[in-house]
Amino acid sequence: RVNGDRLWDSLMEMAKIGPGIAGGNNRQTLTDADAQGRSLFKKWCDDAGLTMSVDRMGTMFATRPGTDPDALPVYVGSHLDTQPTGGKYDGVLGVLAALEVVRTMNDLGIKTKHPIVVTNWTNEEGARFAPAMLASGVFAGVHSLDFAYNRRDPEGNLFGDELKRIGWVGDEEVGARKMHAYFEYHIEQGPILEAEEKQIGVVTHCQGLWWLEFTLTGKEAHTGSTPMNLRVNAGLAMARILEMVQGVAMSEQPGAVGGVGQVFFSPNSRNVLPGKVVFTVDIRSPDKEKLDRMRAKIEAKAPEITDALGVGCSIEAIGHFEPITFDPKLVTSVRDAAERLGYSHMNIISGAGHDACWAAKVAPATMVMCPCVGGLSHNEAEEISKEWAMAGADVLFHAVVETAEI
Amino acid sequence: RVNGDRLWDSLMEMAKIGPGIAGGNNRQTLTDADAQGRSLFKKWCDDAGLTMSVDRMGTMFATRPGTDPDALPVYVGSHLDTQPTGGKYDGVLGVLAALEVVRTMNDLGIKTKHPIVVTNWTNEEGARFAPAMLASGVFAGVHSLDFAYNRRDPEGNLFGDELKRIGWVGDEEVGARKMHAYFEYHIEQGPILEAEEKQIGVVTHCQGLWWLEFTLTGKEAHTGSTPMNLRVNAGLAMARILEMVQGVAMSEQPGAVGGVGQVFFSPNSRNVLPGKVVFTVDIRSPDKEKLDRMRAKIEAKAPEITDALGVGCSIEAIGHFEPITFDPKLVTSVRDAAERLGYSHMNIISGAGHDACWAAKVAPATMVMCPCVGGLSHNEAEEISKEWAMAGADVLFHAVVETAEI
Ligand SMILES: NC(=O)NCCC(=O)O
Ligand SMILES: NC(=O)NCCC(=O)O
Repeated sequence: RVNGDRLWDSLMEMAKIGPGIAGGNNRQTLTDADAQGRSLFKKWCDDAGLTMSVDRMGTMFATRPGTDPDALPVYVGSHLDTQPTGGKYDGVLGVLAALEVVRTMNDLGIKTKHPIVVTNWTNEEGARFAPAMLASGVFAGVHSLDFAYNRRDPEGNLFGDELKRIGWVGDEEVGARKMHAYFEYHIEQGPILEAEEKQIGVVTHCQGLWWLEFTLTGKEAHTGSTPMNLRVNAGLAMARILEMVQGVAMSEQPGAVGGVGQVFFSPNSRNVLPGKVVFTVDIRSPDKEKLDRMRAKIEAKAPEITDALGVGCSIEAIGHFEPITFDPKLVTSVRDAAERLGYSHMNIISGAGHDACWAAKVAPATMVMCPCVGGLSHNEAEEISKEWAMAGADVLFHAVVETAEI
Repeated sequence: RVNGDRLWDSLMEMAKIGPGIAGGNNRQTLTDADAQGRSLFKKWCDDAGLTMSVDRMGTMFATRPGTDPDALPVYVGSHLDTQPTGGKYDGVLGVLAALEVVRTMNDLGIKTKHPIVVTNWTNEEGARFAPAMLASGVFAGVHSLDFAYNRRDPEGNLFGDELKRIGWVGDEEVGARKMHAYFEYHIEQGPILEAEEKQIGVVTHCQGLWWLEFTLTGKEAHTGSTPMNLRVNAGLAMARILEMVQGVAMSEQPGAVGGVGQVFFSPNSRNVLPGKVVFTVDIRSPDKEKLDRMRAKIEAKAPEITDALGVGCSIEAIGHFEPITFDPKLVTSVRDAAERLGYSHMNIISGAGHDACWAAKVAPATMVMCPCVGGLSHNEAEEISKEWAMAGADVLFHAVVETAEI
């Protein structure tokens, strides 16, 4: 078993970096807080005797050597970056539990055939730079390095410039590494495990996603002196599209979600009808056909809405991953570990995207999940218990050690 | 007649300060650009032999003395501040035409019994600090100085601090001045004069306004892993309220408008359902009953919408003026001037709010309007012709001189 207190202390220590305003964290990717978090993590890796290497996307790989010089490593990780109003566990738990696995192996003097690589992927959240899971996407060959470097945050800063600014551009080629296996431990970010009173989610799949960025072009005009029939109202069009997306998601129940988290009005002045409204629709489903059908419905209905208002509409897919099926052998090793340790468990489909989804493109991969209170995540009030954190870390420890072969 | 070229040159000169990104201006109130615009205007006033005084709201009063030491001044002015993506004429035309009236009087050696005071009101637009027409509102006793100083821009800066920062806090008590009359010349900001092919709008009324600031409280949650039935979706509630406001305005046609220019999602991240959505509804009508009925309908229907979604809803009225009837005698002097000068004219109701609306509370007041291309305003592409600008300035000149008595 892992040392739950040590894991918890590390979580609380990391949470001091980039504190939020309501008990959570704002440690968005490539900010000064991210740099601070990386330094602390590096120090802990050094203390655990790991060798740190950083790739050109800033992803951190901390290696514990194996006994067979030819054996490919087992990777275990997640991400230290957070949402602007994020929780203390989303991503962080996975990285620090991976570190705890290695610390426990050190304590017990466990040697494995395969090296273990504790991994911190850059920009998993996609909050500052879309799309999410950017570094693991480049690693898996889904995006080019050039594409990633040219992503912009809402202030117009380039990903590449910000990575350089915080001093974490490594020299390792992205994706050059081969993996024996990839494990990621994460909080569920949904309500199922808690409701079912299970300690462990054995993650068999991850639902797919489309992020559709809408740019609506209206006519900037005075809210007072512009008669109703002369308005080209991009804000009203946005409202109708939000309602339409809700309808499309509801028409595909169960197993589908759709919503909007980000809206920019321009010029965003109380007495100016917006000339431009930009917003991103997030739709997901574990069923590829359903996912693509939702996108098709939305893309068919949106122009009807905008045309009726004379508003211009362009739609760009700025994020996408298909539903993922995780590696059956690794899934079994997670389930067996939970069983062996006497933790209650169930199969679960990940509602959120994870670096494991891209890793699964280039290696056998799977995930372990623990419950979170009220299913709440992407909220500073995100909460888990030490016992939940520990149980998942125990399962991770067992599955990783089994896969890395003593 | 005024010197149209000189007026036009001054307009173009002022437009160089705080240039926009598309040919218009971004000279928002109490910015560095506003300070620069004020300095240029002061220089021009000095050159015209006027005496400048500034009140504690930063409003600029440039006086041309009258022949009767006991006669109250005739005030002529508007505002030099702009929207974030504003035009070159909204407000500016009224201030610089007032200056041109005085310059022409100087040229012709005209002396009047009543002094003439060319006026630049602070923060007419209300884009940075709500409400609009803030300084004239304090002048008219509608708001306290304290209320004004404590208005905040979206970055949280206080009006009072910013006024100090740009160096334009005067020492004159706000509202201490008494007015013989107040004239304001402005572009129509609507499509009527152009459509009716009239050079001059004789402004008889101004429609009233309510600004209702909505704060919707949802539950910040992951867009992917939060099932549809567990969402407390403040963004969806906002969309439904926008549609409802549109419906309310349409149900009160003609003579009513309603819309939303400003929306803030929080945390505004693509994969986070917003915990908070703040937006401002702008409703207007020249008919007080209609205006208040629209407000009542909106305030009755909004909670039905939010309750159905479990979203919290609070509504604050952050801007209001009642429909205004301008002074019949001054209105007649404007109409007579247009007639005398041979300009085509028609009665018109102002769709936008103006400092004249607050001035009308404490003095006889009226306005002159000229057309603008396509009725477009609060848009960098706002345009007028030199001939239109001139015609209105001629009318202003005649009405002002008549009222100030030779
Ligand atoms: N786990 C997580 O929240 N990842 C961010 C990408 C997503 O929106 O699913
Ligand atoms: N004239 C003008 O646009 N004033 C701003 C206040 C309003 O929204 O009417």
